[in-house]
Amino acid sequence: MRENAKDPQRHAERMARKQRVMRERMARAQKEQGVLLVLTGPGKGKSSSGFGMLARALGHGMKVGVVQFIKGKFRTGEEAFFRRLPEVDYHVMGEGYTWDTQDRERDIEAAEAAWKEARRMLDDESYDLVLFDELNIALRYEYLDLDQVLDDLEARPEMQHVVITGRYAPQALIDIADTVTEMDVVKHAFKEQGIKAQKGIEL
Amino acid sequence: MRENAKDPQRHAERMARKQRVMRERMARAQKEQGVLLVLTGPGKGKSSSGFGMLARALGHGMKVGVVQFIKGKFRTGEEAFFRRLPEVDYHVMGEGYTWDTQDRERDIEAAEAAWKEARRMLDDESYDLVLFDELNIALRYEYLDLDQVLDDLEARPEMQHVVITGRYAPQALIDIADTVTEMDVVKHAFKEQGIKAQKGIEL
Repeated sequence: MRENAKDPQRHAERMARKQRVMRERMARAQKEQGVLLVLTGPGKGKSSSGFGMLARALGHGMKVGVVQFIKGKFRTGEEAFFRRLPEVDYHVMGEGYTWDTQDRERDIEAAEAAWKEARRMLDDESYDLVLFDELNIALRYEYLDLDQVLDDLEARPEMQHVVITGRYAPQALIDIADTVTEMDVVKHAFKEQGIKAQKGIEL
Repeated sequence: MRENAKDPQRHAERMARKQRVMRERMARAQKEQGVLLVLTGPGKGKSSSGFGMLARALGHGMKVGVVQFIKGKFRTGEEAFFRRLPEVDYHVMGEGYTWDTQDRERDIEAAEAAWKEARRMLDDESYDLVLFDELNIALRYEYLDLDQVLDDLEARPEMQHVVITGRYAPQALIDIADTVTEMDVVKHAFKEQGIKAQKGIEL
């Protein structure tokens, strides 16, 4: 398209076609319900995308909840920011990085306690959107029972949105999800460029 | 790793190795500077990831700026949310979807006016992080001069972080970026499931 990008007539035609496609797609999309989104893959941006969706939902006056299943050293920014807001129900699993505890039993206890908070939100239709940050990691290490988690997700209120982040999303979760994004690394400053982990940036 | 996931000894070894790798990587990463992040690809989550990074930066008490290069119908959530915050300098390009205007000249004028705001932020070291949402689309349609944009990005204050979102990131931008994430569609509710565009969810 680039060679024609500067041709006003071609541009107008292209934009008009795009507009028709968008309108037809909108017209086809008639099912209204809560969406289950999964953000996975090795690339940067999974958790920040979840928190951005949280901000958008708050901008729409929605009631939101957050449960962080892995408390990362770089997660303190979101925590500090969103905890200031009374309309955000914010819980953090009581452990550091799992590779800092090296105690599987404590990780399991912490994950199960965190899932209790998550299930409380899934049982409460007053929550318009809930974010389960890094839940996929807790599932990957089998800290939680996958079938129980899937059952709780499917039993949630019909209009409730759920956003789940973390690498290694299990296939069974992808199967029940409405939308799944895989984030891949094209370039990584931290890994490739030897740039110091940046306050406010590293995921 | 799953067959051994429940073996506490194997788990502890795996976590210890992960800890060593993280520490070595941290030790190697000595360069401290602002990071240029690019979030691209067809998957959902590019803009919300940028806004999540904005929230994290605000949580760290940073001064931030936003310029949105395509005002999407679904962007109003972030706008409503972040405009409430006095510490956010927020600008939106004065046009709707480009495929709603169908006037290339007006799009170019609007994009150039928006880039003036962006350049003002890039000239001001008091901004710790700036988000140029959907800039890649303005570059894709050649509404802006790519070389000028690259020059302005490279001339920014050394410690300033920049996050750029949108499909079709030009290779020349990827080349100067520190970190690039490609977001791919595994599943899309809107496209595949016929679910109505969700207030607070659609990107």
